[in-house]
Amino acid sequence: MSVASVAAGMPAPSRFRDAQIEMAHGAGGIASRRLVENLIAPILMGQSSEPLGDAAQVKLGTAQVAFTADSFVVSPLRFPGGSIGELAVNGTANDLAVSGARPEAMVVTFIVEAGLPSVRLGAEVEAMAEAASRAGIAIVGGDTKVVEHGKADGLYITTAGIGRPLSGIRLSPASVRPGDRILLSGPIGDHGITILLARGELDIEAELCSDTRCVFSMVATLAQAAGPSLHWMRDPTRGGVATSLNELARDAALGILIEEASVPVRDSVRGACELLGLDPLHIANEGQFLAVIAADRASAALDAMRATPGGADACIIGEVVEQPQATVLCKSGFGGTRVIDMLVGDPLPRIC
Amino acid sequence: MSVASVAAGMPAPSRFRDAQIEMAHGAGGIASRRLVENLIAPILMGQSSEPLGDAAQVKLGTAQVAFTADSFVVSPLRFPGGSIGELAVNGTANDLAVSGARPEAMVVTFIVEAGLPSVRLGAEVEAMAEAASRAGIAIVGGDTKVVEHGKADGLYITTAGIGRPLSGIRLSPASVRPGDRILLSGPIGDHGITILLARGELDIEAELCSDTRCVFSMVATLAQAAGPSLHWMRDPTRGGVATSLNELARDAALGILIEEASVPVRDSVRGACELLGLDPLHIANEGQFLAVIAADRASAALDAMRATPGGADACIIGEVVEQPQATVLCKSGFGGTRVIDMLVGDPLPRIC
Repeated sequence: MSVASVAAGMPAPSRFRDAQIEMAHGAGGIASRRLVENLIAPILMGQSSEPLGDAAQVKLGTAQVAFTADSFVVSPLRFPGGSIGELAVNGTANDLAVSGARPEAMVVTFIVEAGLPSVRLGAEVEAMAEAASRAGIAIVGGDTKVVEHGKADGLYITTAGIGRPLSGIRLSPASVRPGDRILLSGPIGDHGITILLARGELDIEAELCSDTRCVFSMVATLAQAAGPSLHWMRDPTRGGVATSLNELARDAALGILIEEASVPVRDSVRGACELLGLDPLHIANEGQFLAVIAADRASAALDAMRATPGGADACIIGEVVEQPQATVLCKSGFGGTRVIDMLVGDPLPRIC
Repeated sequence: MSVASVAAGMPAPSRFRDAQIEMAHGAGGIASRRLVENLIAPILMGQSSEPLGDAAQVKLGTAQVAFTADSFVVSPLRFPGGSIGELAVNGTANDLAVSGARPEAMVVTFIVEAGLPSVRLGAEVEAMAEAASRAGIAIVGGDTKVVEHGKADGLYITTAGIGRPLSGIRLSPASVRPGDRILLSGPIGDHGITILLARGELDIEAELCSDTRCVFSMVATLAQAAGPSLHWMRDPTRGGVATSLNELARDAALGILIEEASVPVRDSVRGACELLGLDPLHIANEGQFLAVIAADRASAALDAMRATPGGADACIIGEVVEQPQATVLCKSGFGGTRVIDMLVGDPLPRIC
């Protein structure tokens, strides 16, 4: 149903059955996808929309513009390796980057809880300026709202970004073919576990930092090296690598087979996950991305990535297969194979 | 100080002296301006930035793009004449419109408090779809975050919009000249007073609705009728007409003289304001705009506005004068003249 027909008095029949919004609806997993696909997207964007990517492609006159926005509600506001302000800039920059666009400009809005010390707001503004400078993005405008004490949690930040599509690539689940290789930019789970530990609710100490960073330079390298053989990219934030790959498998109607031993996970992340009964594949990342590349260019693309600053730990973690459709399988070191599902529930709330 | 020099390790010297953020910093008046000009803009956007307009102008390759974002935290979520979703679409569309651009596409983000009934979220999503359809805007993407019960107030919405600059006009405080006329699109204060009454804290009943609407069609009519004689526009939301005109007077280093009797105010708004000791010129509007037009085109532009749907109540409320600089004066019906200041404090919190 199109937006126009909604306006014409025919509300879209909502297939969303949950009576109220719960934390899991914001966790990036199955519940989030259900909320977006069954309630929000059909009404706002029409049923015929493209699979939901990281950034929209908009034609503005003769120009093609990549356009995206994310809100950030991470708790705590500061954590080892980053802060909400840095995350807000990198997160939106990365959504543009993995959509195949060069991030160019950003507008930011703050929702501040009354009583927030000004130095804390100032620190986030500085973190944003530094992250934008590092990423080569101009922050061109913004807005500030203040709500009463108890109506927010210190500070929420929303960033919207626009960018220019890189030439020579066309990313879509429809471009993905059996045999394509799956590249991962580096070790997973650092961000989610860092946030969890920063809350101090667990009696675990680990030398761990968030991986928050802008991945555009690596994306550009990959696009250059693989050209049209680069078929798809995604930054596996909420819901982790498992959720991103499940979305790809579903959208492409293909299977994905990954080798557990080839997925880089730091010992501290693996240890925390074992203790908590979590799978590192479900943990959020804020400075990594997945790319699907045709087999004949995968090795050259990987070499180029590894030679790029920040890309030294990139690796091929698996490949696209014909069957079973819409499924992600993981081959363990012992030869067994298990199904990797999307994230269910919200084991790590408010990690971004 | 540029963003680059901040990144190089030279933090901008903050001239912002308030120890913590208070409601007044989000009210759109003097405190808001101090926060933006002394803390946020110098760090994020550099000291050399243009006067802060409603939307930024970004060059993306060969294309000129107008780009803006606003967060909405209005309470209550629904009120006579509108709701947070409708407001969020119209507010960002209007920021693009009064910057002289045709609103084309929007991305939206939701921050939802856990426990919000799904039907309430669904109602806002539908309100947004309808408002976007009426305004001819495509909603192309979005994001949803959920925070724990007690960490938000039901629902906050952020909208970011991009648009294409209208040809034939160039809006800037620097274009404004003594003798220019000040046009107002219709009666003021409806939105702010409607929100106040909707909270039920006052024992006043009035037949009043928010004026929330997209003003682009009126803006386009005016741009067509006045061409380069259209010098400046602004939608007087938070802080009202008084604050917008004070910002213009300051940015243009000129004076502004308005005739009190020529400013349209409904009786119910005037009555509520008298009871509360508020000036209608300080009350927020969500469907009105101010325009400054060279004297020789003002009458023709006004006629064109009045012939446009929604523009029947437009009027000339005053003119630009040389002295006193950076000051707004109001001539009363009795011949006296008083200074109209920017909004101080936050008499009506969270009206958008």
